[in-house]
Amino acid sequence: MKTAVNLPQAKYLLETGCVVLVTSWAAGKSNVMTCSWQTPVAGGQHCSLILSIGEGHYTYELISQNPELVVNIPHVDLLRAVQIAGTASGRVVDKFRDAHLTCVPAKMVKPPVIDECKAHLECRVSQSIALGVERILLCEVVYAEAERDVFNGAWVPESGRTLHHLGGGAFGVLERSVRDDSGGKD
Amino acid sequence: MKTAVNLPQAKYLLETGCVVLVTSWAAGKSNVMTCSWQTPVAGGQHCSLILSIGEGHYTYELISQNPELVVNIPHVDLLRAVQIAGTASGRVVDKFRDAHLTCVPAKMVKPPVIDECKAHLECRVSQSIALGVERILLCEVVYAEAERDVFNGAWVPESGRTLHHLGGGAFGVLERSVRDDSGGKD
Repeated sequence: MKTAVNLPQAKYLLETGCVVLVTSWAAGKSNVMTCSWQTPVAGGQHCSLILSIGEGHYTYELISQNPELVVNIPHVDLLRAVQIAGTASGRVVDKFRDAHLTCVPAKMVKPPVIDECKAHLECRVSQSIALGVERILLCEVVYAEAERDVFNGAWVPESGRTLHHLGGGAFGVLERSVRDDSGGKD
Repeated sequence: MKTAVNLPQAKYLLETGCVVLVTSWAAGKSNVMTCSWQTPVAGGQHCSLILSIGEGHYTYELISQNPELVVNIPHVDLLRAVQIAGTASGRVVDKFRDAHLTCVPAKMVKPPVIDECKAHLECRVSQSIALGVERILLCEVVYAEAERDVFNGAWVPESGRTLHHLGGGAFGVLERSVRDDSGGKD
């Protein structure tokens, strides 16, 4: 069961630097793509994040028409789906179908949420900065939710088991946590 | 032993989304801070990355005077150093000394390299974008190097064992890799 995450905490959903599945929607068409280049960029009472994606991608075409997206956080069992969403083009195939991903409506934006993912950040794109053939998208999170067992104010890798891109088709799995208990302030 | 990484491959040093130690230098003073908010943003023949840091930090004060930095990649054995560099202020204490980190000269920039880290990306800051109290720093990598056992064109988590911030003083450890071998193109 997923529950809402308040916006000051939502940055911790992405804090691990994991691979995400980005969903987009415009004029009745939706798409999903794997993205490894993401980071929170501001906290406080709001939550902002950056995604970097190629401007030639179908996802960017849809975002150009409707500046909204959902950042979905997959886990290791979705490895095959992550691979398909990162290599096929939504202009050619229906990646949701090929990757066996289930779309459900988001709360605040038009792009769908991927039901199989552990957490979601619904976003509006506030700025798009060109950098060569890439686009740096500054996004404001408007709603976030997560499965109860993967998030308790911090991400829980033992149950969340996120994927982290290594290069090519290889990924690392985050599944163990450590803490410094030697007396440093926090 | 560390060897040079060519710039088109250097993005894969940061691709996992791990925590990094950022070193800065200006007018004879240097500092180190832990940063979790980083991502590559462009590949091709060059390598660009983004760091987001608070403009109130001593690191930002030094970077404002000398727009260079080194992104150093720590491993799990440096957990205590990562904690110190992420909570103490370089205005008050010598964090290199307190965290038992060894500075060695970089090849192309003034900030030092941290010898105990597994890899380094020497950077020039090309753009600084204000976002509330945060600064989004767009950086161009000018030189990169890594230990041979942690990088073979992709990061090797079994020997690299990077830290990934979870929230508060907790970190995940990336130490296992998976690959999809079910026939998808790559």
